[in-house]
Amino acid sequence: MDKFFNPTSIAIIGASRNPDKVGHVILNNLLKANFPGKLYPINPSADALKNIKCYPSVLDVKNKIDLAIIVVPASIALKAVEDCGKKNIKHMIMVTAGFSETGNHDLENKLLVLLNKYKIQLLGPNVLGVFNTHSNLDTLFLPSSRIHRPQKGYISFICQSGAVGSATVDLFSSQGFKFSKFVSYGNALNVNETDLIEYLGNDSKTKVICLYIEGVRNGKKFIEVCKKVSKKKPIIMIKGGLTTTAARATLSHTASLAGSGKVYEGALKQANIIQASTLSEMFNFAKLLSKNKKPKGRKVQVITNGMGYAVLSMDYIELNNLEASTLSKKTLDTLKKKLPPLVNVDNPLDLIGDADNKRYKLALEACVKDSNVDIILLITLFQTPLIDERLTEMISKIYKSSKKPIAIVATGSKFTQDNIKQLEKKGIPCFSFPDEAVAAIRALCEYHLN
Amino acid sequence: MDKFFNPTSIAIIGASRNPDKVGHVILNNLLKANFPGKLYPINPSADALKNIKCYPSVLDVKNKIDLAIIVVPASIALKAVEDCGKKNIKHMIMVTAGFSETGNHDLENKLLVLLNKYKIQLLGPNVLGVFNTHSNLDTLFLPSSRIHRPQKGYISFICQSGAVGSATVDLFSSQGFKFSKFVSYGNALNVNETDLIEYLGNDSKTKVICLYIEGVRNGKKFIEVCKKVSKKKPIIMIKGGLTTTAARATLSHTASLAGSGKVYEGALKQANIIQASTLSEMFNFAKLLSKNKKPKGRKVQVITNGMGYAVLSMDYIELNNLEASTLSKKTLDTLKKKLPPLVNVDNPLDLIGDADNKRYKLALEACVKDSNVDIILLITLFQTPLIDERLTEMISKIYKSSKKPIAIVATGSKFTQDNIKQLEKKGIPCFSFPDEAVAAIRALCEYHLN
Repeated sequence: MDKFFNPTSIAIIGASRNPDKVGHVILNNLLKANFPGKLYPINPSADALKNIKCYPSVLDVKNKIDLAIIVVPASIALKAVEDCGKKNIKHMIMVTAGFSETGNHDLENKLLVLLNKYKIQLLGPNVLGVFNTHSNLDTLFLPSSRIHRPQKGYISFICQSGAVGSATVDLFSSQGFKFSKFVSYGNALNVNETDLIEYLGNDSKTKVICLYIEGVRNGKKFIEVCKKVSKKKPIIMIKGGLTTTAARATLSHTASLAGSGKVYEGALKQANIIQASTLSEMFNFAKLLSKNKKPKGRKVQVITNGMGYAVLSMDYIELNNLEASTLSKKTLDTLKKKLPPLVNVDNPLDLIGDADNKRYKLALEACVKDSNVDIILLITLFQTPLIDERLTEMISKIYKSSKKPIAIVATGSKFTQDNIKQLEKKGIPCFSFPDEAVAAIRALCEYHLN
Repeated sequence: MDKFFNPTSIAIIGASRNPDKVGHVILNNLLKANFPGKLYPINPSADALKNIKCYPSVLDVKNKIDLAIIVVPASIALKAVEDCGKKNIKHMIMVTAGFSETGNHDLENKLLVLLNKYKIQLLGPNVLGVFNTHSNLDTLFLPSSRIHRPQKGYISFICQSGAVGSATVDLFSSQGFKFSKFVSYGNALNVNETDLIEYLGNDSKTKVICLYIEGVRNGKKFIEVCKKVSKKKPIIMIKGGLTTTAARATLSHTASLAGSGKVYEGALKQANIIQASTLSEMFNFAKLLSKNKKPKGRKVQVITNGMGYAVLSMDYIELNNLEASTLSKKTLDTLKKKLPPLVNVDNPLDLIGDADNKRYKLALEACVKDSNVDIILLITLFQTPLIDERLTEMISKIYKSSKKPIAIVATGSKFTQDNIKQLEKKGIPCFSFPDEAVAAIRALCEYHLN
C-alpha cells in the first residue's frame, strides 16, 4: 500500500500537452508539488512534455515504475492496465471513469480479471487521486486555481466521494488546516476503505483519520480493523446516507446500501469510531484530537473576557455531557488576591472586558496547575482593546509546557484572524464559536475516556 | 424610540482628545460613518475636537439635542444625566459601566430616579452602543481596527451581551453579511428587549429580528409583543443560559434567572419565535428568512454536481423534518430529453462532475417551474472546471424571476469565495455546507408554514 503514498517513480498514462486535459493537469501538479521521484509521461504522439521525456508505452521505459496513474478514456484503459501488468507495475490509480458507476459493469469485471491476473492493487476507478504532503505527492486532477493545496500536517482524510473531498480540502486547507494524506477511493474495486484505514493506522505521519463513507464493502472486517486502529489513533467518521431519504441516492452514487442510522451508530461505537454529524464538525474534532494532549477527566474550566460567550459555553458543556470544573480553594485564593476585585473568580472565570494580557496569564497559569481542572476552554475576544498580539505569545508558552488540553475560542475579522493564524501556527487549536470548541472537547473525551 | 436610531443631533458627553479613550473613539466613529446630523462634543477643557466646537456642558448648547451618549466615569455620570434632563434631552445611551452589573445597585437606583424625574429613555448603562447602517449612525465604542462595520441590509440584531454583539458583528459583517441595526442594551434599566423588538417590528428597514437574550424582564409582555411582531416579520432567538450549569453565570452576568430549556421552548413556540441553537445558526437562518420568498410547502429539490454533497443533503432533509420533492412526469420527460444520458434525473438531480453552466440552467429552470417542488437546494461545487463565473449570472437571473426559495451551497477557497460574493451581492443566499442550508430551510418552513 505504501507505493500509493510514497512512490519513487510514477508513470502518467495519458499525459497530455493540452492544458485542459486531466493528463496535463496531473503532470503539472506533480511538478508544482516538487515531487522528488522519477516521472514518466506516457503519450505515443509526444517526444517530451514539460521538458520530460515521453514514452509511447510503459513497456518502453527501462527503469522500474512504482505507480501508474491512468487517465486515458475507459475504452482504452484495459489495454493500459495490461501493459502495466506486463511491466510488473503493482500499484495503479485509475482516474478514468465510465465503469460500474455509469452502469458499465461488464468493463469493470474485465478490469478486475486483469488486476487479479497481474496482482495489481488499484485505487479506483473513478477517483480524484491521492495527496501526501510529506512526500510531495499530488495526483489530484484539478488545478490549484480550483483546489487549494494543504500544508504538511498529521490529519489524513479518506473520502468515498470526490466532490466531498475536493470541496472540503479546498476550503479547510485555505483556512490553514493541515493535512497528512488525502485519498479518494472511488469504486473501490480491489482497494477499499478498510485497506486504507489499516495502512494509515500504521502510518507514523497520521495522527487522526477522517472518513467520509457512504457504505462499507465488508462490515465485519471494517469494524475489526477500526477496533485495532482506533486503539492507536482516533478515527472520526461522517456517514453519508443514514436516512431512508438518502438511501436511493447512495445506491446510485456509490452502490452503497444506506444503513439505518441506529445500526451504524451501534457498530461505530463498538469500534470506538467517533461519529461526526457534519463535515465541519469532523474537521473540528480532528483538529483537537490531533494534538498530543489527553484529558484526565471531563471537567472543563472556562476563562473569558466576554461573559455572553461564557454563558453559551456553559450551556454547551451541559448539553454535551461534560462537567464544569470547580476551582480548588488554593486557586480561588491566589486568583482573588492577584486579580482586580471586579473579576469573578469562578467557572466561568470572567476576566471582564478590560482584561489585559497579564490577567489572562495569571488565570491560565492557575487553571493549568489546578488538578480540579481537566480541560481549559479559553475565550479570547480580540475586539477589546487591552489584549494584543503578545497574548498569543503568552498562550503559546503555557500551552507548550502544559499537558492539559486547551481549546481557544475567538470570533472576528482581520485582527482576530491574524491572531488565530499565529496561534494555529504554534499548534494551538482555535475554534470560531463556543459550540464548535465544546463539541470537539466532547469528542476528545469520548475517545480518551470511554 | 426612533431617536435612538435616527437622531439628527448627538451630544457626546465625555468626548476626549486622547485616542485611547472611549469618548474619542465614539466621536471618531461617528465622523467615519459620515453621520449627517449635528455633533456636540462635551468636554469642559477643550475648545474643539476634530475641528468640531466643544461645549463645557449640554446646557451650553443652544440648539435642540436628540440623543446624548454618556461615557464619563460612573462617579460623575449622574451629574451628566441631570444636565441632560434640564436640557430636555429625552434619549440617552449610557456606555458608562459600574452600576448594578458590578454590584453598585445604589447608584443604579439613583440613576433610575433621575430618568423618571426627567422622563428620559435610556439604553444601558453598560452598553456597547447602537449601529444603524441606514442613518450612518455608529456609537460603538470600539475602533474599526477591532470591529469590522457592516454594510446596509435588513437584518437587525438586539444583543444583551456586548461581547456576543461585537464578536459576531465583526465576523459576519466581514464575511459580507448585511445588517440594518445593531443594539446592545446592557443593564436595560428602562429600555429593554421588548421595547426594542416592538420598535423594530414597525421599522420598514428591518426584515428579520435576531436576538441574543439571557433573560427577559417581563416574560408576559415579551411573549405578547413577539406574538404581534412575528406576524409581520421573523424573530430568531438564541437564549443564553438554558441549562443549570449556565444558571450561575447568567445571574452574575445580566442578573437573569436562567429558565429551564423546556419552559423557554414552549414560550418561544407560542410567540412563533424561531429558536437557534448556535450563533452561526441564527445568522444563517436570518440570511434565508430575510429574502422575500415564501415556500408553499416543505418539499425540497436538490440539484448538484457532486453526489456526496447531495447524499448528505438528503440526510439533513429527513433529519430536519422536511420532504424530498418528486419531480413531475413533465419535468422528468423534459430533462431526460435535454440532459446527457449519464445525468440522473431524480431527487437529487445529479448533473455530475462535468456539469457546465448550460446543464445547470436547464435543471434550475425546470425545477422552478415544477409545482411539485417548493424549495430548491442548489449545490454548486466550483472545484469542477466546466462551471465558471457565468453560472452566477445565470442563477441570479432565474432567482430574480422565481418566487420559490432557492438556497445555494458552495464550499471552497478563493475561486468559490469570489463566486459566492457575486451571488450574495445579487441577494442570493449562500451557505458553506449542506447542513447549514437545510437547517435554514427548516427555519423558513417553521416560520411560514406553522
